[in-house]
Amino acid sequence: MLNIRYEKTTNPKPLPEKDNPLKFGTIFTDHMFAMNYEEGKGWFDPRVVPYQKISLEPSAMVFHYGQEMFEGLKAYKTDDGRTLLFRPNKNIERANRTNRRICIPEIDEEDFLQAIKAVVKMDEAWIPTKPGTSLYIRPFIIATDEFLGVRPSSTYLFMIILSPVGAYYPEGLNPVKIWIEDEYVRAVRGGIGEAKTGGNYVASLAAQMKAHEEGYSQVLWLDGVERKYIEEVGAMNIFFKINGTVVTPKLNGSILPGVTRDSVINLCKHWGLSVEERRISVDELLEAAKDGSLEEVWGTGTAAVISPVGHLRFEDTVLQIKDGGIGEISQKLYDTVTGIQLGRIEDPFGWTVEVQ
Amino acid sequence: MLNIRYEKTTNPKPLPEKDNPLKFGTIFTDHMFAMNYEEGKGWFDPRVVPYQKISLEPSAMVFHYGQEMFEGLKAYKTDDGRTLLFRPNKNIERANRTNRRICIPEIDEEDFLQAIKAVVKMDEAWIPTKPGTSLYIRPFIIATDEFLGVRPSSTYLFMIILSPVGAYYPEGLNPVKIWIEDEYVRAVRGGIGEAKTGGNYVASLAAQMKAHEEGYSQVLWLDGVERKYIEEVGAMNIFFKINGTVVTPKLNGSILPGVTRDSVINLCKHWGLSVEERRISVDELLEAAKDGSLEEVWGTGTAAVISPVGHLRFEDTVLQIKDGGIGEISQKLYDTVTGIQLGRIEDPFGWTVEVQ
Repeated sequence: MLNIRYEKTTNPKPLPEKDNPLKFGTIFTDHMFAMNYEEGKGWFDPRVVPYQKISLEPSAMVFHYGQEMFEGLKAYKTDDGRTLLFRPNKNIERANRTNRRICIPEIDEEDFLQAIKAVVKMDEAWIPTKPGTSLYIRPFIIATDEFLGVRPSSTYLFMIILSPVGAYYPEGLNPVKIWIEDEYVRAVRGGIGEAKTGGNYVASLAAQMKAHEEGYSQVLWLDGVERKYIEEVGAMNIFFKINGTVVTPKLNGSILPGVTRDSVINLCKHWGLSVEERRISVDELLEAAKDGSLEEVWGTGTAAVISPVGHLRFEDTVLQIKDGGIGEISQKLYDTVTGIQLGRIEDPFGWTVEVQ
Repeated sequence: MLNIRYEKTTNPKPLPEKDNPLKFGTIFTDHMFAMNYEEGKGWFDPRVVPYQKISLEPSAMVFHYGQEMFEGLKAYKTDDGRTLLFRPNKNIERANRTNRRICIPEIDEEDFLQAIKAVVKMDEAWIPTKPGTSLYIRPFIIATDEFLGVRPSSTYLFMIILSPVGAYYPEGLNPVKIWIEDEYVRAVRGGIGEAKTGGNYVASLAAQMKAHEEGYSQVLWLDGVERKYIEEVGAMNIFFKINGTVVTPKLNGSILPGVTRDSVINLCKHWGLSVEERRISVDELLEAAKDGSLEEVWGTGTAAVISPVGHLRFEDTVLQIKDGGIGEISQKLYDTVTGIQLGRIEDPFGWTVEVQ
């Protein structure tokens, strides 16, 4: 149990105007959570304080050796005014998995949840309520030792910042166009692909730019060993409906274990659909598209929730999925997941956690 | 040509005491170079200012998506009081190669060199002169957009900080023990392995901790595809002398193109040694150790210069090289490279650049 210190802002910012459509990740609330770590002392000084700049020495390790991790989850306001988090414990578990992989000290799971609740409660008024909006919660940890040698830092800063957000893709629920990348590689088994750490994202930028130039909004990565098996989209996991069966790449160490991915697997099984987590080669995909058994494609992620995929391009082959429209399962998943998140429909799995 | 603005410190720090052995990367000089970038405006406001903290929003992209790069080079004081840089243009070229790979705008090569010279000149008094010491120069760039979506930043901060340093390894020129890693992977072809960016270093920490626990100071990485071919040590490239021939892994996209690596190849060829850049499997290495043809092993890097390797461990096999002592070529390379760097011996390649 953290003994959180509170310092309220004396200079609150205006809430974003209700009529302005919210973008993703550009506006931040009045407060943030912060907590420090020192070797031998552990995590200390948990605090909710005014949103403010971080001041670090130029030699701080985070600027040089990428020892940084983050998480992403969301808070929603229900019609009767309650504040709900969606499966925060899955994010907290994954945070500590990332921490272990990149040698950052773990954070007690209950303390982590308490920290999220504390700062969300403080800025509850910032949770937007328009359809498709939510309060995005970004916990992150950075290495702060002032040292230029390569080793794990002995000091860290843990923070949680909050951002009222609209749709991640400007397309909203409209289908996105995805580029299957055959040159650049995001991650490989034995590497850090399953960790939520900056290095995986910086590795994705060059291919993303290439895809954008061709009119595609995201990159679908292939495995780093054979460059043959489907992995993930970087900001999303990927699902296919092939011949009535829902198929998604099996977690193999280089794929991020998405919380929405897990939720979608659970929902599809709950609905009686057959779900397979296994290896899927790009050849199998092209074959299924050709013979008409590729019925639907969608991405899953906290930021985008469910994102129908309308086009896939691999080298010179362009696959149009569902005539470029929204598939039946994608729509049902979107409605169900957001329905549960907003407390509007039954939550059979006990996924939502109220902030009181 | 940069129009550099100067602001001298009014509060100079004491120089490190001459009798205290210098460590690596813990002390910083009085000034730093800084320059900003904005899309549409380019790099602007080049300045040499007092060494000071960086103040960034918690949403600054560098804290989340690892878009950061760095370089490392050194300045030396000659016996007659001149200040020499060692092959700065190689570092500047590589910096822009890293920039292109991770979507950071390039810096004009002449401007880059001018910036290095300007800040080194300002803090010239900080260049230590004891054997084995130098002024380590750390240029780095960080992404500063205040945005939580994944894309290249549109604003950056470029800085150069300076640190008077001693030996990188506490062992000095004494041979280090190296652990050949068979589980974790640092980088893979198609990835960012050849770029000098944080993501490659954070990926190395877990294996480094494992190696340390076993009494080894560094990790030697195998390729990410077959986990069979020797790549590099993370902070160094690696060289073997097998049956009279100097062998080092060929640059393949996942290996850092080291400046000291290139210098060592040139020197060995200059001395009439046969040098091969090619794939080397760990099996070939074990075989060569067994039949006695593995004559010498050393690492090369700016921080460590030349680091003889006394022991190599792969799984349960421990190879002792040269009875754990310093090899003939390692010693000759160390003497020659540092001799050129200090202006004490002839510089047949024109590698040193004077700061005037």
